[in-house]
Amino acid sequence: MEQFLQEAKRSSAVIGTLQSAKKREVLEQMANALIKQSDYIIEQNSKDIEYAKENNLSSAMVDRLLLDKSRVEAMAKSLKEIASLREPVGRVLDGWWTEDNIRIEKVSVPIGVIGVIYESRPNVTADVGALCFKSGNVAILKGGKEAEYSNKAIAKVLQDVLEANNLPKEIISLLPDSSRAGVDYLIKQDKYVDLIVPRGGEGLIKYVSANATVPVVKHDKGLCHTYIEKSADIEMAINIAVNAKCQRPGVCNAMETLLVDKELAPTILPKLKDAFDKYHTELRVDASAKEIIDAKEATQEDFDTEYLANILSIKLVDGLDEAIEHIGKYGSGHSEAIVTQNYTLAEDFLNRVDAATVYVNASTRFTDGGKFGFGAEVGISTNKLHARGPMGVNELTTYKFKIYGTGQIRE
Amino acid sequence: MEQFLQEAKRSSAVIGTLQSAKKREVLEQMANALIKQSDYIIEQNSKDIEYAKENNLSSAMVDRLLLDKSRVEAMAKSLKEIASLREPVGRVLDGWWTEDNIRIEKVSVPIGVIGVIYESRPNVTADVGALCFKSGNVAILKGGKEAEYSNKAIAKVLQDVLEANNLPKEIISLLPDSSRAGVDYLIKQDKYVDLIVPRGGEGLIKYVSANATVPVVKHDKGLCHTYIEKSADIEMAINIAVNAKCQRPGVCNAMETLLVDKELAPTILPKLKDAFDKYHTELRVDASAKEIIDAKEATQEDFDTEYLANILSIKLVDGLDEAIEHIGKYGSGHSEAIVTQNYTLAEDFLNRVDAATVYVNASTRFTDGGKFGFGAEVGISTNKLHARGPMGVNELTTYKFKIYGTGQIRE
Repeated sequence: MEQFLQEAKRSSAVIGTLQSAKKREVLEQMANALIKQSDYIIEQNSKDIEYAKENNLSSAMVDRLLLDKSRVEAMAKSLKEIASLREPVGRVLDGWWTEDNIRIEKVSVPIGVIGVIYESRPNVTADVGALCFKSGNVAILKGGKEAEYSNKAIAKVLQDVLEANNLPKEIISLLPDSSRAGVDYLIKQDKYVDLIVPRGGEGLIKYVSANATVPVVKHDKGLCHTYIEKSADIEMAINIAVNAKCQRPGVCNAMETLLVDKELAPTILPKLKDAFDKYHTELRVDASAKEIIDAKEATQEDFDTEYLANILSIKLVDGLDEAIEHIGKYGSGHSEAIVTQNYTLAEDFLNRVDAATVYVNASTRFTDGGKFGFGAEVGISTNKLHARGPMGVNELTTYKFKIYGTGQIRE
Repeated sequence: MEQFLQEAKRSSAVIGTLQSAKKREVLEQMANALIKQSDYIIEQNSKDIEYAKENNLSSAMVDRLLLDKSRVEAMAKSLKEIASLREPVGRVLDGWWTEDNIRIEKVSVPIGVIGVIYESRPNVTADVGALCFKSGNVAILKGGKEAEYSNKAIAKVLQDVLEANNLPKEIISLLPDSSRAGVDYLIKQDKYVDLIVPRGGEGLIKYVSANATVPVVKHDKGLCHTYIEKSADIEMAINIAVNAKCQRPGVCNAMETLLVDKELAPTILPKLKDAFDKYHTELRVDASAKEIIDAKEATQEDFDTEYLANILSIKLVDGLDEAIEHIGKYGSGHSEAIVTQNYTLAEDFLNRVDAATVYVNASTRFTDGGKFGFGAEVGISTNKLHARGPMGVNELTTYKFKIYGTGQIRE
């Protein structure tokens, strides 16, 4: 393992200074290679599918794992999109002359060696590998056991392209020891690894955060709220609430709790109930909402739960302050929305709520690298530092200061 | 302690949304209060000085601790400078319309609650408190025991101004339990604290890094190099080398190792020796340099040592690649310089060396928040993530995405 990490570190100097045009070319070759090798990838994927079925994984799980021609094509398309993104390295972020007549340039540079730990969908292997490559970083990928054959096949296709271009294959590689011990080793190698991004269950993320000495950017849970303020457009509010909960309930940017203004509740709650009933959403409502609609009463715990399921807590609040207070107490700092027609309250909400992404009049489901226009995403950071919210190629860079002097010394 | 941290967290909502003009006004009042209360501060400081002398602290140490009228005035001046800096909160860092016709604004926001652990000079209490205040953060300050009375006096003056303005005094406060146990508690309270900045000895920084669950931005060691390339202007190279080593040898941006091009060595080494002799610098040189000048031979360990003293290692290298390789192996990623007249080599050095600050033709001593024009600094980050190099008010912010919708839902 140590030898592998040494190679990875050494390779980071190669990919970190690789020309932009060359990076684009290699990524396009990778996209073409995925299509050319799709039979091989699908064949290897079938072993994972077989294993999943033997082990009675849910059909949803099996579907997430499955690769067919069109999914391999989608993977290739994503790589081409990443290839065509603006060069993330060398962006001049700031620049000025100092009092000593020194010229300072603050420029984006690759982070170095990045370890990404993830589960299920094999396309993450291609996406994250490509995002790291585009941003000049070495990617050490640790996928889930359930996608082992698929991930190995995809990594092999990408590595063959690297080698055909005389680039070290360590630039995109799978962690050689994918056991728990391997992960445990990886997250403590701050000498070789510059960043760990864990994506997955709460257990994994807690374990990595508690034990890593390498900096961690978490892709953690989302306990997201939508607050329907009393001036809200009723139809818009219902559409947004239903979309935020029901369009895909099992993801981190789905809404878990709906806050409804007390004054508006008698009008909107029955309509909301009708709308959610069509999606068979289980509502858990506070005592005051229960006086208006017939639903299960919510416990304190409900408001503290990321259901990741078609269940929604509803609470009535007396104005913006109470809504913001509730969000401050229970929110996970991921995505928080207000639906309102009131300019002042909209601005107040956006400014005062402490979250990576704050919305007015849109569904929280838009917190997503693709929807942000980042091409693809490494994850959605719930960290406050380094990167916050969707992470694309720019978030895989750090910066350095370049100092241009003419012989200056300090007095 | 927990109650104190709860108050600190609550206060972060107050300072985080305080108007820019009000923040400037309060900082100016603080500057004036320091001057008005200078007798009180100096009187309290004299207790620390007495204690230092009783405990036989070095005269350099006593001098660092000492406050007199002019030093209090300098502290006040620094606060006025920080007051006049451009507002760091709410800077629009990026913004665009998405494919869904959503408008996204990426804006700077305060980090929240910041713990800073430092030693010696009491002016850090005022500077760091003011920088955190300006950037909308709560500052929890933990100074050294040796400056206890001085720090308490300064904090009291600042807190009196906060209270006179009806602001919670927790916005700038000293850690109530300043023992090791108190620090140990603080660095694990990720529920309340968003960032820890340790400044000080290697022991402290290692301890904090290994044990904190709160994110840490280190102000760690600097093992800085200067590489004199063969096309360098000889006089400029000598001036820069002497300044980088001798102007203040005990600081992190001082040079520890000088790399000299083999071809230039016979010409420049004797002149360098003469120049360093005037400063009584102890030279430790590799075998090939020893053939040219008379000096102690360097061991392998010398090249791996941050002397923080008037000692310099010298090594001859065969061109840019060897210089960069040496820096990659021994450098701490702080500040690295090349002296050259060759355009291509200068650019290569700046691009390829992995450090927070990379220089051409200037002394590494300029890696400093003040010299960068940041007004003052919280520290010089040796982290690669979040902030790198000198940290001013902007580095005490993170960002959020504001999403302006018109009813968008995700298909």
